[in-house]
Amino acid sequence: MSEFRKDPLSDRWVLTLDDPFFTPDPSYNLNKENNSFDENCPFCPGNENRSSHEIMRIVPAANSEKWSIRVVANNNPYVKVETQLKKRGENIFDIVSGTGANEVVIESVLHNDDLDTMSFENIFDLVKVWRSRINDLLKDKRFEFIMIFRNKGERAGATVVHPHSQVMGLPVIPGNIASEIESARKYYSFKQRCSYCDVIDAEMQSGIRTVSVNGYYVCFVPFASRSPFEMMILPKNHIPHFHWMDDAAASDFAAILKDSIRRINIALNKPSYSIMIHTSPVQIMDVPHYHWHAEILPRIKPIAGFEWASGFHINPTLPEDAADYLRRL
Amino acid sequence: MSEFRKDPLSDRWVLTLDDPFFTPDPSYNLNKENNSFDENCPFCPGNENRSSHEIMRIVPAANSEKWSIRVVANNNPYVKVETQLKKRGENIFDIVSGTGANEVVIESVLHNDDLDTMSFENIFDLVKVWRSRINDLLKDKRFEFIMIFRNKGERAGATVVHPHSQVMGLPVIPGNIASEIESARKYYSFKQRCSYCDVIDAEMQSGIRTVSVNGYYVCFVPFASRSPFEMMILPKNHIPHFHWMDDAAASDFAAILKDSIRRINIALNKPSYSIMIHTSPVQIMDVPHYHWHAEILPRIKPIAGFEWASGFHINPTLPEDAADYLRRL
Repeated sequence: MSEFRKDPLSDRWVLTLDDPFFTPDPSYNLNKENNSFDENCPFCPGNENRSSHEIMRIVPAANSEKWSIRVVANNNPYVKVETQLKKRGENIFDIVSGTGANEVVIESVLHNDDLDTMSFENIFDLVKVWRSRINDLLKDKRFEFIMIFRNKGERAGATVVHPHSQVMGLPVIPGNIASEIESARKYYSFKQRCSYCDVIDAEMQSGIRTVSVNGYYVCFVPFASRSPFEMMILPKNHIPHFHWMDDAAASDFAAILKDSIRRINIALNKPSYSIMIHTSPVQIMDVPHYHWHAEILPRIKPIAGFEWASGFHINPTLPEDAADYLRRL
Repeated sequence: MSEFRKDPLSDRWVLTLDDPFFTPDPSYNLNKENNSFDENCPFCPGNENRSSHEIMRIVPAANSEKWSIRVVANNNPYVKVETQLKKRGENIFDIVSGTGANEVVIESVLHNDDLDTMSFENIFDLVKVWRSRINDLLKDKRFEFIMIFRNKGERAGATVVHPHSQVMGLPVIPGNIASEIESARKYYSFKQRCSYCDVIDAEMQSGIRTVSVNGYYVCFVPFASRSPFEMMILPKNHIPHFHWMDDAAASDFAAILKDSIRRINIALNKPSYSIMIHTSPVQIMDVPHYHWHAEILPRIKPIAGFEWASGFHINPTLPEDAADYLRRL
């Protein structure tokens, strides 16, 4: 029996099927990379001179000559920080110059690492690097939004195997975020409560879609998941901004992130996936309606013609079944 | 120089690059099918018994034993017309039963046909079949929206080569349409004018993105195209509903549709592409703010990680350059 489910957070409708025979398309699994070093990889140690300007690096205490994480300027940036910000109209059309920051975080020295194989300390450092890059970039008041995303595997659009994420400073709020915030604002104006806080309450009460919980965070499979085994990690308390986390919260986030990727890597045999940090526009402090969160979206099925045309996603697996499976791993 | 362009119709932002070296990924071209008949194709003549319930057929006057177009029930429907419509809440979550119509229009007897190779009469009949299916389905008051879409090629999600389109009756308005209508409503409440009418005026005045014009319609490359060579066909006058077209307008629509597909098939060597009819919710008559139109979206590039994460599209080709090229063909 199919049903249309509405995501209360984004107003997005998903057509949910109940297909017990769904199996991921194997071509959507990650091309397994077994080598921890590739001499042709621009992110592997020894090839540091192939990347643009280094912005920061983390150096392990035990070995001060090596790095464990590097942040570098993107060699092929979509947007440039040197471009002067101009917003203009042409007839009825609106244009904003391609001003922005476009940084790459090289997350590990190991070419074949992933968030489940990295040490906890490495991921804890990574989370703190993300926080630090936001805190630095938000000083440039031209940036409305700092976007952090991480794509793994060809099907998620990643062009480099070596584990990396991207940090972008943008002069306009990305459409995915803008429509979520708009939806959250409508809910708040109707109920005077944050929709995310309400969903967290509902999910933790029923438990049927919960995957894991730790001190600061909860991970669950969204009610209207777009894809089988989609997951969402949220702070249990109302926190609008990712970069407001203290070290204790960063440590818990590192732990739940590592654990969540471990679960989908087992469940789906190392699928392509995307992680996106959804956080509030950086120049706005008072955000009672929006709640930062991380979305983890496995890329395991082609997009059907119906999905392209309608904007409905089709999810062949019941979110409750996916959560049950993930919870047991 | 990159720039962010805002589509005044959908509020969607696109990052437009000016990449003179962009060439479509050849794997995104259509697998060329040279045979006009395939005995294994469920839509080829002779295999009529392999399709579900036939809903209607067009029979050419000259040969009353043959069909030229058939409409059949989808063998693998996402939604079912027999499912009773139920809208219910569960805690804070909203659910609508998977009620709906899911029809397939087999557009030609020839396995390898496309809208540029079909006769004008065939396409004129096809447009009238689409209109007729809407007029029939809207009698079922459970359907808020009748969606017509047509995917060609694997990269557009088509699973059958034989030319076909789909007609779906849906109890909820697809997200792509709902957000367009919301954006059009905001524009209308601000200006008391239809945003589509304003864009048509602007495009016909400047001419820099216009591809072709005939009696009733204009075709142009949108200012904030999501993909190189995207096109949009609109009635020049304000008409909210596709199915309100008379035969004269249907004839002009058939002509401009055939011509537009001819142009992208030459420009991009038969790419995968999608056609979507965006029209008003069928049960609402008074729609001063929304204007039906057809979107033609070539599927010629993989979606980058940045696009997945942000909802920004990245278009490597300037829409003005694409329009100039298409106009000359």
